[in-house]
Amino acid sequence: MSRPTAVDAGVGDALATGLVCPVPHAAPAQVQLGHGSGGTLSAALVQQHILPRLGNAVLDALGDAAVLEPLAAGAQLAMSTDGFVVHPLRFNGGSIGHLAVHGTLNDLAMMGARPLALTLSLIIEEGLPFDVLDGILDDIADSARAAGVRVVAGDTKVVERGKADGLFITTTGVGQVHPSFSPRAEAVQAGDVLIVSGPIARHGMAIMTAREQLGIGNDIASDTAYLGPLVEALREAAGAHVHAMRDPTRGGVASTVNELAQASRVGIELEERLLPIPADVRGACELLGLDPLFVANEGVLCAFVAPVAAARALAALRAHPLGADAAIIGRAAADHAGLVVLRTGIGGRRVVDMLPGEQLPRIC
Amino acid sequence: MSRPTAVDAGVGDALATGLVCPVPHAAPAQVQLGHGSGGTLSAALVQQHILPRLGNAVLDALGDAAVLEPLAAGAQLAMSTDGFVVHPLRFNGGSIGHLAVHGTLNDLAMMGARPLALTLSLIIEEGLPFDVLDGILDDIADSARAAGVRVVAGDTKVVERGKADGLFITTTGVGQVHPSFSPRAEAVQAGDVLIVSGPIARHGMAIMTAREQLGIGNDIASDTAYLGPLVEALREAAGAHVHAMRDPTRGGVASTVNELAQASRVGIELEERLLPIPADVRGACELLGLDPLFVANEGVLCAFVAPVAAARALAALRAHPLGADAAIIGRAAADHAGLVVLRTGIGGRRVVDMLPGEQLPRIC
Repeated sequence: MSRPTAVDAGVGDALATGLVCPVPHAAPAQVQLGHGSGGTLSAALVQQHILPRLGNAVLDALGDAAVLEPLAAGAQLAMSTDGFVVHPLRFNGGSIGHLAVHGTLNDLAMMGARPLALTLSLIIEEGLPFDVLDGILDDIADSARAAGVRVVAGDTKVVERGKADGLFITTTGVGQVHPSFSPRAEAVQAGDVLIVSGPIARHGMAIMTAREQLGIGNDIASDTAYLGPLVEALREAAGAHVHAMRDPTRGGVASTVNELAQASRVGIELEERLLPIPADVRGACELLGLDPLFVANEGVLCAFVAPVAAARALAALRAHPLGADAAIIGRAAADHAGLVVLRTGIGGRRVVDMLPGEQLPRIC
Repeated sequence: MSRPTAVDAGVGDALATGLVCPVPHAAPAQVQLGHGSGGTLSAALVQQHILPRLGNAVLDALGDAAVLEPLAAGAQLAMSTDGFVVHPLRFNGGSIGHLAVHGTLNDLAMMGARPLALTLSLIIEEGLPFDVLDGILDDIADSARAAGVRVVAGDTKVVERGKADGLFITTTGVGQVHPSFSPRAEAVQAGDVLIVSGPIARHGMAIMTAREQLGIGNDIASDTAYLGPLVEALREAAGAHVHAMRDPTRGGVASTVNELAQASRVGIELEERLLPIPADVRGACELLGLDPLFVANEGVLCAFVAPVAAARALAALRAHPLGADAAIIGRAAADHAGLVVLRTGIGGRRVVDMLPGEQLPRIC
């Protein structure tokens, strides 16, 4: 067929289709509803903001779904998803972008899985400045690169002003489970030593001080970090003696060890004097009446390790910068199955329950 | 050690921990911020609302990540993620729950992949009634069951009233690519026949009539459906002659075929008189000044098939209830590469561009 006249007249012009919605001709400084349309503005968002930062051979194909490389025989997949709604979007020590990568990859790592691929779903409020979005995409790119994982698929939606809060992110990761290393929540045994890989309660207090403008604790930085290297160190040092691992995010160490106590039907004893709590975090918690055991962490893991391997597990963690302050903070016991008990600094004992309600919303 | 006294006093009581946030003792009728805390209210949400509907052996483990069954040697994964922000949450023909399952599984199906597992991330606005949430979880469960896929992992966040719009959902799917069936966006060839599997523009018009209370087109139902069975029928009938498939969601058939024209460097010709547009959809579009080619679909696929296999591909689609109205609507051509041209009912021709701005926000 012959070329229609409109082609020569410049069909890239949006007006050629006669649609009712006018299109801005200069690149907008803020995200608009049209960026979620699935049309040319959506394509511009992907081509100008996302692919330059996150592009790779799989993502660049922009298929309906990403197609990954073939897996080895017998490969066993782990899969995790997390939504991130942290407020503010940026805080001392990181941003929602760092959290979105670290949080999901850490969930894989806690099951002994190495990440294969990550997906990224953005729900953006109309009006979000592009420089804010770009900065967060940079953080996602940096975090993913450091963890050695690619973003292979994504999606972007835009909702009207006032119908979201800047930006919500959901990431989903698939990983490959190590064939001979599979810690499980239900595998804690009485006698196991509880190791925490670093100082606790930093992420939650960083968010709280950023949000409330308290004038105290403003130097507290989030601990957000990818824990894969620490898991690798633990695996090499203690292998199958690592019975369970979990990262104590929302709900803090207290909620996490409660879940493990219940899943494994063991009691857990914590030693208050052994808890690694930085002085500034402790001070801010005391001023606000918060218990650091319930405050969120984003770069710390709890591991239950057989006593025979505890010393070398601890040494292996401490040899890594992320684990320099690793400490033994308690142990699993046969009695009071399902309960967590804290031996306090003054020699008393109290039961530590899960976080019952809400201590600080939108922590991650 | 001996049991501490507090155990006997009933440690399940939330007040035992001395936290500041009071906890309601009756089951609340609405989602509260505490349901996103990672503590006991979060656990109640999972145990009372999610697991009874979506539970299965993998999800019930509630690990940090889901661990799937080992894969066969050489398995190749496809992965897709989609955020859903549709407003209203429920509309004629379905809900955000149906869309969240169908949308992601359809993206896998378009790459020739059968679903292995699905993850579910919920971002809930404080105050969402539990009966609304439960109804949508039922829809998710029904859709997933019908498609033969399990929800293996999930996450729930709650944001303050006014910081979201009821409910946003992100689903992510992994699937296994068929070893000898892999349609690709860049594989359309000149001469290929373009088949659409059913009537177009129904989803978008169902949302628009539901939202705007127009008093017209109120009987238009969304076409939301899982397309896996149609893909299977196409594969059996035409195999490798199916060069490309895509579901024309946001941006409609026009945006989708534009993407394929660009990816494959071919021209595409559409025949206006062949477009399957139901009379009520056509009427509502005309009243509103909308072009059905740009209106979203959620249960329709576009396939480019080699001419030699077109007749049997069409017959195979028509033999399935979802494809009863399948039709050939155009073809790929060697000239005007990258452009889509519509031959109009009165014999004219016009270029059909991608949706430039926003026709209807929050369609899915």
